[in-house]
Amino acid sequence: MMYDLIIRNCHALIMPAGQRLEIQHNRDIVIDAGKIVDIQPTGGVDTGRAHEIIEANEMLAMPGLINTHAHVPMVIFRGLAEDVSIERWFNEYMWPLESNLVEEDVYWGMLLGLVEMIEGGVTTVADHYFFMDQAARAVEEAGTRAALGWAVFGDRGYDALTETAAFVERWQHQAGGRITTWMAPHAPYTCDDDFLKATVAHARRLGVGIHIHAAEEIGQTRASLDKRGLTPIQVLEATGILEAPTIIAHGCGILPNDIELLKNYSDHVGVAHAPKTYLKLGMGLTPIQALREAGIAVGLATDGAVSNNTLDIFESLRLMAMLQKHEARDPEVMTIPEALDIAFSGSARVLGMADQIGRLASGYLADIILVDLQGAHHQPLHSLTASLVYNARASEVQTVIVDGQIVMRDRHILTLDKAHIINEVNQSMARLARRVPDKRIQVYNP
Amino acid sequence: MMYDLIIRNCHALIMPAGQRLEIQHNRDIVIDAGKIVDIQPTGGVDTGRAHEIIEANEMLAMPGLINTHAHVPMVIFRGLAEDVSIERWFNEYMWPLESNLVEEDVYWGMLLGLVEMIEGGVTTVADHYFFMDQAARAVEEAGTRAALGWAVFGDRGYDALTETAAFVERWQHQAGGRITTWMAPHAPYTCDDDFLKATVAHARRLGVGIHIHAAEEIGQTRASLDKRGLTPIQVLEATGILEAPTIIAHGCGILPNDIELLKNYSDHVGVAHAPKTYLKLGMGLTPIQALREAGIAVGLATDGAVSNNTLDIFESLRLMAMLQKHEARDPEVMTIPEALDIAFSGSARVLGMADQIGRLASGYLADIILVDLQGAHHQPLHSLTASLVYNARASEVQTVIVDGQIVMRDRHILTLDKAHIINEVNQSMARLARRVPDKRIQVYNP
Repeated sequence: MMYDLIIRNCHALIMPAGQRLEIQHNRDIVIDAGKIVDIQPTGGVDTGRAHEIIEANEMLAMPGLINTHAHVPMVIFRGLAEDVSIERWFNEYMWPLESNLVEEDVYWGMLLGLVEMIEGGVTTVADHYFFMDQAARAVEEAGTRAALGWAVFGDRGYDALTETAAFVERWQHQAGGRITTWMAPHAPYTCDDDFLKATVAHARRLGVGIHIHAAEEIGQTRASLDKRGLTPIQVLEATGILEAPTIIAHGCGILPNDIELLKNYSDHVGVAHAPKTYLKLGMGLTPIQALREAGIAVGLATDGAVSNNTLDIFESLRLMAMLQKHEARDPEVMTIPEALDIAFSGSARVLGMADQIGRLASGYLADIILVDLQGAHHQPLHSLTASLVYNARASEVQTVIVDGQIVMRDRHILTLDKAHIINEVNQSMARLARRVPDKRIQVYNP
Repeated sequence: MMYDLIIRNCHALIMPAGQRLEIQHNRDIVIDAGKIVDIQPTGGVDTGRAHEIIEANEMLAMPGLINTHAHVPMVIFRGLAEDVSIERWFNEYMWPLESNLVEEDVYWGMLLGLVEMIEGGVTTVADHYFFMDQAARAVEEAGTRAALGWAVFGDRGYDALTETAAFVERWQHQAGGRITTWMAPHAPYTCDDDFLKATVAHARRLGVGIHIHAAEEIGQTRASLDKRGLTPIQVLEATGILEAPTIIAHGCGILPNDIELLKNYSDHVGVAHAPKTYLKLGMGLTPIQALREAGIAVGLATDGAVSNNTLDIFESLRLMAMLQKHEARDPEVMTIPEALDIAFSGSARVLGMADQIGRLASGYLADIILVDLQGAHHQPLHSLTASLVYNARASEVQTVIVDGQIVMRDRHILTLDKAHIINEVNQSMARLARRVPDKRIQVYNP
């Protein structure tokens, strides 16, 4: 029997559920029909039995990185809203800028963001934006994996909601199964209870989950308590959202009582953590430790590039780990194995894909990246895992495999024309950067 | 007349003191006798008048980065002390590990750290370590700039102190003026008052400054108050240290009263800020804003690679800026221009070199780096300065010039044999990683 692909002579990052992570040195990874079928000591598999061989030369092989919450096409506005309060960020910058959006922008922006993520080893992204047919088209071309939701505000009405449900139907399990779809109401402060309940009905009918912003920062939680006596998380429960698989974006304003409540939904509800955005917008931090102690999955995310500036999960991982130590004033919390557990199995759980991605093991999807840790800033390499969390850069990802297909090899993306994409986006810069007084897609007033 | 070097067609980061920073597009930078002599619109200078030309192709030219506090040779122990308390970090890891040090290790470790810093655009480092003749020899070979101090503990005695003063004399203004030297007593908690006073006498006699750890975190400040009723900063004043030019490393435990006190020395005392170390060791943060409001210089630093893991000033810059927003829960503080002011003129002031480095202007030393911001994660480049602070990676530095000499060109280091250095360090890994019970160079008990 022939295999599709063998990755020869890598060091493999192995993280069995509930056990110590380990680096297995000098391994061959056998891939067939889009899945990992075997991991053996180098030489243990006959390379003559593979259609294709990648020589890893002792690079680190690990599961493709997972970005559990982004607005990828927003890269087109990158750098346009710096050093402003969250209220101004929305009302004076982001929402006015987004009134410039045309469908084509989402296509090119999604492609550009996918280039950045492929180059940085991200193989799966949960994206939440507009004109999502264009995003899906881009993912199909890029060859990566995505969980896509068409964002909608309550004031757009029920027809708009129904259109986002139609998107869910059109693209669920498309692109050879690499695309899954989600309902994506914006947030409890922009969607009223009836709208959220209608979203739940669509999700139930279609058998999909719901990706939503909630309790993004403590001010939103306080405003919700003031206005209606419920926290945003309690609103998610009251409207039935939490009955569906749910990705809660940010949750920096989640209270201890919310965590008690979320415990009841911990088998299908997770929280996406995007620390760079929280620092830049002064939002505080998601209560990661308390969520995890309650059994609720936490994953890594980048949010959009207008707040996060990059779509770099290595950076999210490092910031997440360091900030937990900082907040606790205790360097012994959030150890390297725990940080990696969040990055891989945590993020996979948030997307409801814990049995498919985030792990190098037989039967898992062959989403694998090879990382070169030979740079001077890793030397001497006393600890490979410490270097992975605290020294590695996105630019050190050399090769990216998704669904058993090689998407980037030796830093060259095989599926997309990077120069053409950058050129297309650059053509639109002036138009995209315009802000017209009082023209915005929404008002921030949580 | 002929010039030594022209950098042709860069975008130049210009930061006139007390004025708005600006990007001057398409500029030629003229260099002669180690200094910047002119900056003109591209084409304004006859390139036939230069012995050498670097085509910048619209890369960003900026002053070489400055690392105001490091223990560069500690890279040889990188990754060996993770996820441990500060007390264990010193007593169970760092100080036992350093009992393995031989003079030769410092030479190779310094070279390795200089490779990392050159690749990351750092042209000047204030280093604080042992066997510093070896560090000086490495700097001489690397072609970079350094402010070197031989670290000493009080319990080593006055002869040891005198030896560190002899190092100061041997190397002051050597390597064509690229090396300056400093006295480097370890800290008030490891040097008693008489020892510190004797250090001041040496510094005064030799006309040099003092580089010292103080108030590294609030626990040290409290311990000092408990034991003797003075803060570490008050000890620096009482012993006369602050009369000399002083680099205070860390200062996360600096109190408001200390800042009032430091005001009186603000023309020659600065504080080195190494945020990655503080996060990883849960040390809190230097009160940057209050120090700067009091007119006291703050610069960026990396500390050693056993706590900081890398010697990456881009990373220090980004963390510094983001953490100030986070701590204040206010995204409008620590704007991009202010962050860059700290990175360049702030760091130069900390080293007492504000009229020599940290600025692209005629008469300044020609320490210049070229950074390529064309990667996908910078696109579209709506804001070059936002990208510099929030997106740029050390690996995007292409060319490094120090004292008018090209040290790295197109990512190839011209002065050092990188592969040989890494190989030499790797030979010693097992010996360096050994820890023998109760064998350590010092005990942490502030």
